[in-house]
Amino acid sequence: MIVVFDRDHIVPELPGIVLLSHGPFAGACVESVAMLQGAQENLAAFGLEPADELADYTAAVLDAVRAFPDGSIIMVDLYGGTPCNQMMLAALKEGLDLHIISGFGLPMVVDACSLRSAELKGDELLAQIEEIAKAGIINVSDMIHGRNA
Amino acid sequence: MIVVFDRDHIVPELPGIVLLSHGPFAGACVESVAMLQGAQENLAAFGLEPADELADYTAAVLDAVRAFPDGSIIMVDLYGGTPCNQMMLAALKEGLDLHIISGFGLPMVVDACSLRSAELKGDELLAQIEEIAKAGIINVSDMIHGRNA
Repeated sequence: MIVVFDRDHIVPELPGIVLLSHGPFAGACVESVAMLQGAQENLAAFGLEPADELADYTAAVLDAVRAFPDGSIIMVDLYGGTPCNQMMLAALKEGLDLHIISGFGLPMVVDACSLRSAELKGDELLAQIEEIAKAGIINVSDMIHGRNA
Repeated sequence: MIVVFDRDHIVPELPGIVLLSHGPFAGACVESVAMLQGAQENLAAFGLEPADELADYTAAVLDAVRAFPDGSIIMVDLYGGTPCNQMMLAALKEGLDLHIISGFGLPMVVDACSLRSAELKGDELLAQIEEIAKAGIINVSDMIHGRNA
């Protein structure tokens, strides 16, 4: 399991962002965001590796989610993938009020880090991020050739 | 510069996919995709690091794009970021016919790997990927609570 989580430096009232992926994608995202915007508070990542026990993985993620302030959100790499499914099961079986979105990339994470606040969190934050992340997927070639100006 | 590119094992007629990012995000994506789908042919990644000369970075990327078959596509982490801007400049200044899309995440890369072929490549591939990648951004909480069923 690849873990990026600084339990000793949690900022109160700042909603956390927890990135989940197969392999190193989530942890690398934290590094790339830091290169763009500087190190971010309350940003964690858990990369599932082939040898991991799923129960251990899920427990580690939920432990971080509980340690972060209310309204924290979970971003998973792929809808229907194992990290996504584990969180859906946790929400349904344990009745946890988790805020989950799939398909993260840099636009989603960067803007979530900028937008989140004590006022904008949880489901409201998720709704904004969904639109922003979709808008961050741009056919740059069309733009260059004036096809979607 | 973080480079994932196997020049000695290029598969003819299979459009290449070249992932570009700030830092390790692009290279980690190749590893995570391999964990999901097995190692992919003609999939390269270039991570820009703070100490890199931009001209060297751009030259390395374009060298890979030229080595791959026609109709290969470039996925950049963030519209307006340095890797994106370097490719836009190369397309505009050197008149290169590059196929570029921004905001990659697992849904985009996984589906591009599955869809690409000698027939589906370049701008046509890009158009399909754009829609699929947007559809891969799903508010999972809404789904759990039946709010977007």
